Amino acid sequence: MPLGEFDLIAKYFTRTVTRAALGVGDDCALFAPAPGMQLAVSSDMLVEGRHFLPTVAPDRLGHKALAVNLSDLAACGAKPVAFTLALAMPRVDERFLDGFARGLLALADAHECELIGGDTTQGPLNLCITVFGELPQGQALLRSGARAGDDLYVSGTLGDARLALEVFRGTVALAGAAFERVRVAMEQPQPRVALGLALRGVATSAIDISDGLLGDLAHVLRRSGVGAELQVDALPRSDVLAALPEALQRDCTLAGGDDYELVFSAAPGDAARVAAAARSAQVAVTRIGRLHADAGLRLIDRHGRPVAHTFGSFDHFKS
Amino acid sequence: MPLGEFDLIAKYFTRTVTRAALGVGDDCALFAPAPGMQLAVSSDMLVEGRHFLPTVAPDRLGHKALAVNLSDLAACGAKPVAFTLALAMPRVDERFLDGFARGLLALADAHECELIGGDTTQGPLNLCITVFGELPQGQALLRSGARAGDDLYVSGTLGDARLALEVFRGTVALAGAAFERVRVAMEQPQPRVALGLALRGVATSAIDISDGLLGDLAHVLRRSGVGAELQVDALPRSDVLAALPEALQRDCTLAGGDDYELVFSAAPGDAARVAAAARSAQVAVTRIGRLHADAGLRLIDRHGRPVAHTFGSFDHFKS
Repeated sequence: MPLGEFDLIAKYFTRTVTRAALGVGDDCALFAPAPGMQLAVSSDMLVEGRHFLPTVAPDRLGHKALAVNLSDLAACGAKPVAFTLALAMPRVDERFLDGFARGLLALADAHECELIGGDTTQGPLNLCITVFGELPQGQALLRSGARAGDDLYVSGTLGDARLALEVFRGTVALAGAAFERVRVAMEQPQPRVALGLALRGVATSAIDISDGLLGDLAHVLRRSGVGAELQVDALPRSDVLAALPEALQRDCTLAGGDDYELVFSAAPGDAARVAAAARSAQVAVTRIGRLHADAGLRLIDRHGRPVAHTFGSFDHFKS
Repeated sequence: MPLGEFDLIAKYFTRTVTRAALGVGDDCALFAPAPGMQLAVSSDMLVEGRHFLPTVAPDRLGHKALAVNLSDLAACGAKPVAFTLALAMPRVDERFLDGFARGLLALADAHECELIGGDTTQGPLNLCITVFGELPQGQALLRSGARAGDDLYVSGTLGDARLALEVFRGTVALAGAAFERVRVAMEQPQPRVALGLALRGVATSAIDISDGLLGDLAHVLRRSGVGAELQVDALPRSDVLAALPEALQRDCTLAGGDDYELVFSAAPGDAARVAAAARSAQVAVTRIGRLHADAGLRLIDRHGRPVAHTFGSFDHFKS
């Protein structure tokens, strides 16, 4: 006989909480942020075929479902505290649940982020996580804080997740080890939580890249009322991507999506503090452009020549 | 051209927040509970065909999606503060979104509960709301607080939502006005938030009835380590249900599900305080049984005779 709803919550998702006052198993979870702290809250929903492929291993999917939410906390400079999980599945599949819970809870443990509640139900596969972080009042990294003259930076490398998607789609061919590297980038992104924390008081704005650099950067520019000049050849990319045709590199780095790196701005005088934040978080950070008072986004190549800008951003109702 | 993801968030779901520090539109929402208060958090996911029928009017669906979450806060005695909404839809349907947002936000306004963030994406229709309430540290109504000797109460009436479902399923026939009354019970349940607040310090335990009285009461009995004697003929029911065969009445009141009434316990000496809480919340409250030290649930009829107990509870992976 298959497990029922309450059995499977007990078996896979009930853990002793240490930080929250009450975890899984009552009508609500109970917790309080530390004194003087503000809560940062974000929800992300993942749908099969749109946010992940049916071929993904369950543990990687568990990792990714939480990672994309932790990435939102990172972009605010918030420290993860807790999360809720709502899960719809077509049927109870213990092999799936076992792997999923393992990947999910391993990442949760790595960030000391407690599973405090949620819901399970039958339906087309859908994962909805709401994550809670805390940060001192008024210290959040916002999309609206960028200023003309600020330098623009990005963490890690861009484009590998999109490259992996294109391999799955059959538009690009990659050999075994190279494919596995970009596949891990797509399926197990590392949320830049430590960097977000280190950038509090240093970065003037931040956002995480989920829909593609250009699209996500556009939110920052609009909210901050500034424009930007972006050096497309300066965008950091993996060796795998760097070995492929330039047009593909540009597509993937500028508009790939699913990167979960942070793009952020900082005053030019704070370059050393940005470098120190990157060192302390053990993440590479690359300067990729500068902000201007004039609205709009200008792309230039390594020779300073304008690059035609025909890249779209990922829109969940358009692509 | 259809609206994209960001357009539709802006058009339907972006509102000025007054209580939260930051609402829809950044990577995270930001808020803090009032000083000395604890947060109560609950997530519920609604899937078409399982939690609602495709025939439901969009405004009623918007109401219900939030109502079932507010009902969890009510069961804890928490005051609603804010919520996030994650919404997967097969396609952008503005008629649906307009009605859905209207019903959702009307109930939110009635409870001063702010929409502070969320996510929209393409996929099979799925609504995931995470709701936040606040309450003074240590005052939550828990499933684990019931004591032997306590009286058992329920709010409102039970069974109409299940009756409406049976009409949709074709197993029961009901004439127009009667059908509309039970249909409203199914599609627009009223979360008992005011009652939950009034029961703080009065009730020893509480739970909201979503899966059926017997199933939900069983959680309380198990967590509290007590048993109960339940008077099945004392269960409150509408005139519509009371006019139908007794077996159907018992099925619907004992194991119907989707009631969103509160079942709670209180010391016999607190009967007057329970009545005062019901008056202040303007909700009928009925005494339906008593708790015992012996484990298990005994059902008796109006003559004190045992009633055979063959009712199941609603399990999202079994029925």
